[in-house]
Amino acid sequence: MSSRQEAERLDRDDPLASFRAEFVIPDNDLVYLDGNSLGRTPKATVARLKQVVENEWAGNLISSWDHWLDMPRVVGNRMGSIIGSLSGEVAVHDSTTLNLYQGVHIALALRPDRKVLAVAADEFPTDRYVVEGIAHDLGLTVRPLEPDIDLHDVAVVVRSVIDYRTAEICDVKAFTSLATEAGALVLWDLSHTAGAIEFDVHALGVELAVGCTYKFLNGGPGAPAWTYVSENLHSQIQQPIKGWFAQKDQFDMEMPFAPHDDIRRVLLGTPHILSLIAAEEGIALSERVGMKQIAAKGQALTAFAMQVVDHFGLTTSTPRDPQRRGCHIAISHPRAKELVADLATHHKVLADVRPPDIVRLGLSPLTTRFTDVWDGLQRLSHLISG
Amino acid sequence: MSSRQEAERLDRDDPLASFRAEFVIPDNDLVYLDGNSLGRTPKATVARLKQVVENEWAGNLISSWDHWLDMPRVVGNRMGSIIGSLSGEVAVHDSTTLNLYQGVHIALALRPDRKVLAVAADEFPTDRYVVEGIAHDLGLTVRPLEPDIDLHDVAVVVRSVIDYRTAEICDVKAFTSLATEAGALVLWDLSHTAGAIEFDVHALGVELAVGCTYKFLNGGPGAPAWTYVSENLHSQIQQPIKGWFAQKDQFDMEMPFAPHDDIRRVLLGTPHILSLIAAEEGIALSERVGMKQIAAKGQALTAFAMQVVDHFGLTTSTPRDPQRRGCHIAISHPRAKELVADLATHHKVLADVRPPDIVRLGLSPLTTRFTDVWDGLQRLSHLISG
Repeated sequence: MSSRQEAERLDRDDPLASFRAEFVIPDNDLVYLDGNSLGRTPKATVARLKQVVENEWAGNLISSWDHWLDMPRVVGNRMGSIIGSLSGEVAVHDSTTLNLYQGVHIALALRPDRKVLAVAADEFPTDRYVVEGIAHDLGLTVRPLEPDIDLHDVAVVVRSVIDYRTAEICDVKAFTSLATEAGALVLWDLSHTAGAIEFDVHALGVELAVGCTYKFLNGGPGAPAWTYVSENLHSQIQQPIKGWFAQKDQFDMEMPFAPHDDIRRVLLGTPHILSLIAAEEGIALSERVGMKQIAAKGQALTAFAMQVVDHFGLTTSTPRDPQRRGCHIAISHPRAKELVADLATHHKVLADVRPPDIVRLGLSPLTTRFTDVWDGLQRLSHLISG
Repeated sequence: MSSRQEAERLDRDDPLASFRAEFVIPDNDLVYLDGNSLGRTPKATVARLKQVVENEWAGNLISSWDHWLDMPRVVGNRMGSIIGSLSGEVAVHDSTTLNLYQGVHIALALRPDRKVLAVAADEFPTDRYVVEGIAHDLGLTVRPLEPDIDLHDVAVVVRSVIDYRTAEICDVKAFTSLATEAGALVLWDLSHTAGAIEFDVHALGVELAVGCTYKFLNGGPGAPAWTYVSENLHSQIQQPIKGWFAQKDQFDMEMPFAPHDDIRRVLLGTPHILSLIAAEEGIALSERVGMKQIAAKGQALTAFAMQVVDHFGLTTSTPRDPQRRGCHIAISHPRAKELVADLATHHKVLADVRPPDIVRLGLSPLTTRFTDVWDGLQRLSHLISG
């Protein structure tokens, strides 16, 4: 039987409970269940930003570019530890949208004879827009990703590992293997995955992936995204936006374009250092705790949430099997939008709505308490039962 | 006759001298002559970042997106006051490289029958790389921009208003008019222009422009860049990267792509809020002082610099006519690289080198003192004369 007492006991026994103290939390009574849209603020980020602004920018000025220049790769290596990639396989840069655009083009250059892109009709909007936009401009076909899809003529499938509504985890290994057998590439979107569950690109056969850092990785609002390209493909990275941060001898200004032979081929313009610093601190915290521990906490949070959902008789589309769900849960209700607004305005619960009928609750392993889960769902159920 | 006394007198009489106190300057003896690569740190930026991180991010969390969402346009409107554009004509977003890529594509969509792009062989590298990359991918021709260039079949010319080496200002009005008569568009790069000289896109007939904010606008390391599109072209903006921040009903997630009818058509993914905040504060300071005053100070600084250059018998490729130069000056010397390194290591002067033989000194109107100009050039001349 679920109860607030049980939630309190789970909080007391939580081996990661102490990490909440590493975040800036001005209002400890606020029930924040939207860490999957915007993670909280690590205290280390506040300190580091101050140091970077006052010492590196104001103090050392242009000299700081000596070490800022390589930050997309340095932070990329930290990011790699979250998704199981090797050193040099990830760059942290730009936005998920831009990185998807590049990723699709990288895949197309690797499969020049194929004229079909695949994406699910209910995939996250920006992923669909990118795919459809490229298909439109290049005269390619978009095939809806459905269970029995024929991949034999598909260049690349763009697919989220975790569904942004239900949190369902797809079978990455099986699907990658299926695609590989058909000669298709898969560009995986790990936006709701990285920092939420354990993931190992190499064990799963993943060659291309992108994702954001501002959700479970607590990288800050609009923190730069990342691109992973398996090392075996680095020399073949071709993407359409040629910029000076991909250039091998960047400051020999007179040269023709001759990019690096590594992940820096995806870089374009000057990295957004302040946002990148915040991304680094967020990622570094998850790196320090370790994804095994974080994933275990995430599973415990969602397992408890599913119990509470049943306790209050709520309806969820999130999988029952803990191996098949990420770190958010979806409550279905026709008045989802009003409920979320009411929770925020009157009940100190910040949740998220995903049209048409989903109340989405993000359970962020490093900051969400079991009591937050109880309180949030209890208040939601009171609103529903009116 | 130039002298340090004259520099001191000019500093005393400088109507903008007090604005230096609005910047974080830990070492007042440092002669910083690289504000055209990285502007200094406004104190307002330090305070605003702290407020945004601690109150808006840590405190209000996801709710802050209510006002962050429109920041690319809000900051864009401030940026518009620097370049003379109307409300709604500028978005601050992404990087100059990305914005050039989009800008060339916007122009190509407006001139679908033309197969030639033009860029100078000695244009800033990232501008050339972008143009050459697009031409390569689309099977277009790149024609070198030379004085007698034939523009009758050119879709778009990419051109810097101010040369990144010599600071020479090109005749924007005459060239735009010439291009327009030939049916060609011009995508102007204002990276070394915005915040350095007065500029009025509408008076000059400019329809497309991009630029950075981290130089004379003091927007911080890797601060987001901006895109200006003349309002008459907004409904025709077509660019290849379709992202959810261009979408009219962004959070009605199930819809097909249907972008705004305005400058937001250039937006892609989630804006890098921390970097964008710093850009806003930098731009806001220049907006408050006013470009007329800033440009006058810039001209006074470079006029004094040219006197000192002559006084010490240095060689410059920067135009003598103050109407034809921006806010940096180029000293030619075969040992440019060693001289700049020596100045930084032993003489407390931070300058810049542009291969093969240019020592570049950026004179930033809000922070550079006339005594910095004297001291920097004096120390440089001592090094040269050995």
